[in-house]
Amino acid sequence: MVREGMLLVLSAPSGCGKTTILKRVMAGLPGLVFSVSHTTRPPRPGEQDGRDYHFVDRAAFVAIRDRQPSGFLEWAEVHGNLYGTSREEVSRLRAQGLDVVLDIDVQGAARVRRDWDPVTVFIAPPSLAELERRLRGRGTEAEETIALRLANARREMAAADDYQYLVVNDDLDVAVDALRAIIVAERCRRRRMPSGETVELRL
Amino acid sequence: MVREGMLLVLSAPSGCGKTTILKRVMAGLPGLVFSVSHTTRPPRPGEQDGRDYHFVDRAAFVAIRDRQPSGFLEWAEVHGNLYGTSREEVSRLRAQGLDVVLDIDVQGAARVRRDWDPVTVFIAPPSLAELERRLRGRGTEAEETIALRLANARREMAAADDYQYLVVNDDLDVAVDALRAIIVAERCRRRRMPSGETVELRL
Repeated sequence: MVREGMLLVLSAPSGCGKTTILKRVMAGLPGLVFSVSHTTRPPRPGEQDGRDYHFVDRAAFVAIRDRQPSGFLEWAEVHGNLYGTSREEVSRLRAQGLDVVLDIDVQGAARVRRDWDPVTVFIAPPSLAELERRLRGRGTEAEETIALRLANARREMAAADDYQYLVVNDDLDVAVDALRAIIVAERCRRRRMPSGETVELRL
Repeated sequence: MVREGMLLVLSAPSGCGKTTILKRVMAGLPGLVFSVSHTTRPPRPGEQDGRDYHFVDRAAFVAIRDRQPSGFLEWAEVHGNLYGTSREEVSRLRAQGLDVVLDIDVQGAARVRRDWDPVTVFIAPPSLAELERRLRGRGTEAEETIALRLANARREMAAADDYQYLVVNDDLDVAVDALRAIIVAERCRRRRMPSGETVELRL
């Protein structure tokens, strides 16, 4: 009997190193996957339908979204494009015993938390001053982009209290180890194990 | 401000490798300590008062035990000797930010769970058949000792459902990694962090 995979919600302000941390954790830990999101934005060069995104038009997206219950675990509109996480795809992956990562913002996380039982992790910078230093250090961002990102970070970090785990990315190796540990530990949660396993252990 | 350390309750039937796992985890993870227990049993050669145990006579033990509230987090009588975990010592260590390991049986764990908020981990063998094979493999135990240990294991494993985490010691490296991960993950728990840290993060 395959144990159902967990749903892992990961949020972080821009510039906290979430993508780097996640890439390294996923490379070292089998059984952890992204679900492929649906989007109405057009594919960029090199992007492949079904691998990077499920590219759909607005009517198709809305039809999935407005099913009862909604075909999306969560969805959002960003710069006029719709993005959504398919309920069906997440369920299919979890039924195979895979742990599914949702890389979503604090609003999306709030929606998933309401209806599901996800493991929620917030990745934070050591401080906003350090985040500002990192964003400026890239040397590629316009001043107003930096100001916008810092304002967003301040708003998002106010929601960190609603997450079960907080990983402060001060040292990258430590942060990678912490996120990996959270997933390994959650796999050992007694309540995740089907009762069949207890019976087997008792005999 | 020092963050208060956690209380980690660890139980396992005899022969599950608990001591080996714990030794390896503690060697690799700073900030994790045992509290030194009180006991009425006489010191064995090489044992040192205050390091291996606090050796006390029965009257002293009972006086500590019967304070209101009790001076012991939990206590037990084994083969006519009393053993107890000092509430004062555990509190002192936790106030220093150290995570305190209590290596206790399922009854002791039930008592600690009632009054405290410990992290609880049960270490189990892959199966009772495998445990029996391991106990026999030692080649040092009398047949009736093995039978007694198996009966105890069966009884203790029925209590595994009451623990938050279950680590199955099938492969030693995997079990060590899992216990270590549980501790690292619990250190990232949002609810363990003083609200002062959120404020710092928000500014």
